[in-house]
Amino acid sequence: MANVIVEMEPGATAEQTGAVLTALDELGFEARLSSGRVPDVVGAVGSAGQIDQEDLAGLAGVARVVIPESPFTFVSREFQPVDTRIEVGPVVIGGGMLVVAAGPCAVESREQLWETAAAVKAAGAQLLRGDAYKPRTSPYSFQGLGEEALKLLADARAEFGLPVIAEVLDPRHVELVAGYVDMLRVGTRNMSNYPLLAEVGRQAKPVQLKRGFNATVDEWLTAAEYIYKEGNPRIVLVERGIRTFETAARNTLDLTAVAVAKRLSHLPVMVDPSHASGRRELVGPLALAAVAAGADGVMIDVHPHPEEAKVDGPQALLPAEFADLAARMFRVKEALGA
Amino acid sequence: MANVIVEMEPGATAEQTGAVLTALDELGFEARLSSGRVPDVVGAVGSAGQIDQEDLAGLAGVARVVIPESPFTFVSREFQPVDTRIEVGPVVIGGGMLVVAAGPCAVESREQLWETAAAVKAAGAQLLRGDAYKPRTSPYSFQGLGEEALKLLADARAEFGLPVIAEVLDPRHVELVAGYVDMLRVGTRNMSNYPLLAEVGRQAKPVQLKRGFNATVDEWLTAAEYIYKEGNPRIVLVERGIRTFETAARNTLDLTAVAVAKRLSHLPVMVDPSHASGRRELVGPLALAAVAAGADGVMIDVHPHPEEAKVDGPQALLPAEFADLAARMFRVKEALGA
Amino acid sequence: MANVIVEMEPGATAEQTGAVLTALDELGFEARLSSGRVPDVVGAVGSAGQIDQEDLAGLAGVARVVIPESPFTFVSREFQPVDTRIEVGPVVIGGGMLVVAAGPCAVESREQLWETAAAVKAAGAQLLRGDAYKPRTSPYSFQGLGEEALKLLADARAEFGLPVIAEVLDPRHVELVAGYVDMLRVGTRNMSNYPLLAEVGRQAKPVQLKRGFNATVDEWLTAAEYIYKEGNPRIVLVERGIRTFETAARNTLDLTAVAVAKRLSHLPVMVDPSHASGRRELVGPLALAAVAAGADGVMIDVHPHPEEAKVDGPQALLPAEFADLAARMFRVKEALGA
Amino acid sequence: MANVIVEMEPGATAEQTGAVLTALDELGFEARLSSGRVPDVVGAVGSAGQIDQEDLAGLAGVARVVIPESPFTFVSREFQPVDTRIEVGPVVIGGGMLVVAAGPCAVESREQLWETAAAVKAAGAQLLRGDAYKPRTSPYSFQGLGEEALKLLADARAEFGLPVIAEVLDPRHVELVAGYVDMLRVGTRNMSNYPLLAEVGRQAKPVQLKRGFNATVDEWLTAAEYIYKEGNPRIVLVERGIRTFETAARNTLDLTAVAVAKRLSHLPVMVDPSHASGRRELVGPLALAAVAAGADGVMIDVHPHPEEAKVDGPQALLPAEFADLAARMFRVKEALGA
Repeated sequence: MANVIVEMEPGATAEQTGAVLTALDELGFEARLSSGRVPDVVGAVGSAGQIDQEDLAGLAGVARVVIPESPFTFVSREFQPVDTRIEVGPVVIGGGMLVVAAGPCAVESREQLWETAAAVKAAGAQLLRGDAYKPRTSPYSFQGLGEEALKLLADARAEFGLPVIAEVLDPRHVELVAGYVDMLRVGTRNMSNYPLLAEVGRQAKPVQLKRGFNATVDEWLTAAEYIYKEGNPRIVLVERGIRTFETAARNTLDLTAVAVAKRLSHLPVMVDPSHASGRRELVGPLALAAVAAGADGVMIDVHPHPEEAKVDGPQALLPAEFADLAARMFRVKEALGA
Repeated sequence: MANVIVEMEPGATAEQTGAVLTALDELGFEARLSSGRVPDVVGAVGSAGQIDQEDLAGLAGVARVVIPESPFTFVSREFQPVDTRIEVGPVVIGGGMLVVAAGPCAVESREQLWETAAAVKAAGAQLLRGDAYKPRTSPYSFQGLGEEALKLLADARAEFGLPVIAEVLDPRHVELVAGYVDMLRVGTRNMSNYPLLAEVGRQAKPVQLKRGFNATVDEWLTAAEYIYKEGNPRIVLVERGIRTFETAARNTLDLTAVAVAKRLSHLPVMVDPSHASGRRELVGPLALAAVAAGADGVMIDVHPHPEEAKVDGPQALLPAEFADLAARMFRVKEALGA
Repeated sequence: MANVIVEMEPGATAEQTGAVLTALDELGFEARLSSGRVPDVVGAVGSAGQIDQEDLAGLAGVARVVIPESPFTFVSREFQPVDTRIEVGPVVIGGGMLVVAAGPCAVESREQLWETAAAVKAAGAQLLRGDAYKPRTSPYSFQGLGEEALKLLADARAEFGLPVIAEVLDPRHVELVAGYVDMLRVGTRNMSNYPLLAEVGRQAKPVQLKRGFNATVDEWLTAAEYIYKEGNPRIVLVERGIRTFETAARNTLDLTAVAVAKRLSHLPVMVDPSHASGRRELVGPLALAAVAAGADGVMIDVHPHPEEAKVDGPQALLPAEFADLAARMFRVKEALGA
Repeated sequence: MANVIVEMEPGATAEQTGAVLTALDELGFEARLSSGRVPDVVGAVGSAGQIDQEDLAGLAGVARVVIPESPFTFVSREFQPVDTRIEVGPVVIGGGMLVVAAGPCAVESREQLWETAAAVKAAGAQLLRGDAYKPRTSPYSFQGLGEEALKLLADARAEFGLPVIAEVLDPRHVELVAGYVDMLRVGTRNMSNYPLLAEVGRQAKPVQLKRGFNATVDEWLTAAEYIYKEGNPRIVLVERGIRTFETAARNTLDLTAVAVAKRLSHLPVMVDPSHASGRRELVGPLALAAVAAGADGVMIDVHPHPEEAKVDGPQALLPAEFADLAARMFRVKEALGA
């Protein structure tokens, strides 16, 4: 295993960069051009063979050959120093504006989805969440409505004009889900599900990658590399809390990780305070903190009747609570930007 | 969600038990007969409907209707008080004898597998491990030989007479792997991969279920319930360390969990000190401790040339080290049994 | 052990409340009047004897007798619903204004302290930190200048007009330190050092109580109860990160705990992002997040020459970095307050 | 800070070693002679000044000058390769025999202590534990009988001939406790209480140092170095579980740490499965595992009437349970030694 980053000289021509790409390809690498750098930078990964750094350095137009220290290459700031901007329909994540995704944890019915979507849109949310397949600790808990929910999501997008996001659990369902929604999500339990990451990496849809609640930031970024390597660079990292000894909330939201991930990677980072805390009354302070810590977006569970929710009712905000919080989040964002 | 355990009266007839099974089936439950209790006990899970306990209690021959407190039913001691014994070829796990599985972390070549198999068999190992698919943190690390490795494992079984065990990662590969090996394994990263658990639950092969390095004992047993519920009761739990703040070894082997799991569940428990510690010099003390703590078996990485191993070389014992350790483990087991 | 909270009736007289206090005193309790409630509320703790709730309820003017569920009584919201405001010289912590404490981790010299104090004051800090005694993991590391540092702190207060804060490590030094500084601090390693807590509880100085990096919120509040019970109610809780598996920063700052502590307790909460992260580049995002999460104050390490610092140089902000951050923190606070 | 280990040549004379000790002393070091090596080895710690390695290497008889990599020096295997043997009265810890300490968590009365002492002695325990001062999470819990308990312990030693062990909490009590008991203990909450460690380091009594439930092995050994540095080399390390996310038992017993500590340090290691688990039914499996993992001793809570215990009753074994377990532990030890 020997990944490599090749930086071209200021005056290098497109042909010279092309020759480097070809040379790496012939050596068995998967090589890509960084979109964020001038002059050109080429990243190449995954060759079982040995690289002769001097051979590469000797090619015309090559300024420098770097062997990255981290276990990830394409998602690193070394490869691409400028922030990645990811378009989900008309919404841009990572472009400096605060993006708010909101909606029910699971799609339960048309009425529930419609009522929630109308409310979150009115409050300023730009994306609609709602899951069709739920990974549940117990095999006896509600597992989601499946394709029926996907159809409702597609209808809701048409009705409300909000791009929709849903989770994928099973590599065999990825194409199905991708056919309905605007953005896929890999959940916390599946961050190290490599067949699933690879499948998601082959789709032409942006993807949210939740941090495993047991995973270090390095492992999280390396999981993103699995997706990127398969050809899908449209990845949004989502911090959602880690498991620690503290039991006052479901998990411990790790905003340090947001700051660290943004330093190490060019990918945008969102935060999910709802699943992190599992408690409605903690969502507000944590959402505001996430914005202040520099998150590019926040994702929040909203439910018009939390006491009837089939999944995670205790963490869902009421529509009015969400509207109040959204206003406060945008004010904090504005204060920081000034 | 309402699981239920129905205990029959001492004099209940097979017909009466059959009537209870039928009644539960008609209510939408998946009902099974406990193999470990006299008089009969029926466990029933997964009905969305409400149970009328009084109706059930009124059936002929029923002594008591119990709603289990834990999130798992079939794998609990409440359902089956006697230890489950699992046969893997001629080997019995959970029957009171210490079972030792050993072999390379990954199958790398016929030579490597043959040399290792011969050595571990001579030292008393009853099962041969060796993986064909490896879940690697980095997409650029060796991912296993795939079906080629499975063929080598099947050949090794024929040659050495040891049943073979290999990991499954992808629900789409489960049948393929099950076609070659005697025992499947779900690894630590996949303990909460529910589509994979369900697929494994549909096979007619015994399965090792590793504890997620982030999972509580309750979650581990509930993951086992996913497998059991699909129809496969031949599950061996494998403790392999949890992630903590301590960095002196890869993970913290949790032998408390072995004792707790054996109290809560009738399933056998094995321990993998090799993956827990990641360091050869710690494997011996931890393996001996596992036996003393009451584990039904131990699984150990052995490699004839660890410095050349493609995966986890630093944790592999040399054949001679393994032989010495195996002898010591059997002595400890004997001392306890006296 | 039976703590109790006695709520008086709306029309209860001072004499009636006094009679309740006397009755509890005679039963062996330490009883105190809540400062935050009308009508009067009496909390009483620590009696080995049994309370006869009916006897208490029968006293004139008593409306209700409550046995608190949490392990702490005086520091709970049940006992005192209104926020405690703590005066440190002219500064009020917990009164709705953001309080910023800043200064060097350890006092190293007059020059270092003067240069830092001038800079942090100019940037808006209201309190000056600087330690005389440092608890160091290694016995061979710099342990602080001791009383010499205390004298410098007292001089700095006179010179700059900022109240000063310093840590106490040893119950035998508490009076000495209290004689020099305006506010004491119990550090993270000493949160469960009960003799030290008791000694601090007997001083007439306000005290910062850092959360143990291994402690739950419940344990943190119970440690505060140790101080309160000895007679010192002027306690500020300080969150400074917990130990988890993540190694990207020194510890994981737990802002969920800030929100939880403020719900369970009336005591103010500050946050120390410098010691939590141990890395200068993470201090800013975490400080802003702390303000947004609702912290009453923030404490930050500043050093004019971090590369020469004897303790924790890598986490100290330069004066100019601190000035920029302070301005941003006040802006976020303003945005929230609007 | 620059610690150093000086290895003498095979033919070095006592005078030459003495000259090295003098030279280091003059450089401001605290220098000690390793008891475990031939030829002589000198360890020297704590000088603020810079060492000129060449000057030291140039002294007559010096073979090699080593700067240790770990944060501890005296307690390391580098300084002393042979195991330390610690005598507590007639009992030797670290000499190859299994040492069992047992007794009540807290001394509650003469009857309780006598009944327990007689029982544990009959079952083979060589040391008697029983605390006079208890560090309790809540200020309202039983805090121990204090000096009255110390007197009972001294009487029990006279009556039963077992050396006695008790915890110290407060640096101001260390001399008092040391005047009564044979072995001191620093508890898990005080592992980083440096004033207490220093005070214990000045006593002429052996000391048990419990690992902080939040501490790495490196920090634990560095805490031992605090004690050793003050002049007390008679230290027994005690593993008692660490805090993790798992809540099935009070803490997670870390037997990996036992193996690691014994590799890094020459100090003996004991294990306390009672405080680690907090549950009677888990003590047996964990005690046996500790012996198999290579612990030099085990310490177990025993109480004749656990339901009446003022502290930690649920973890205390009954005398008969202890007798059975002790017999099994000695059998495991014998099996390993063969």
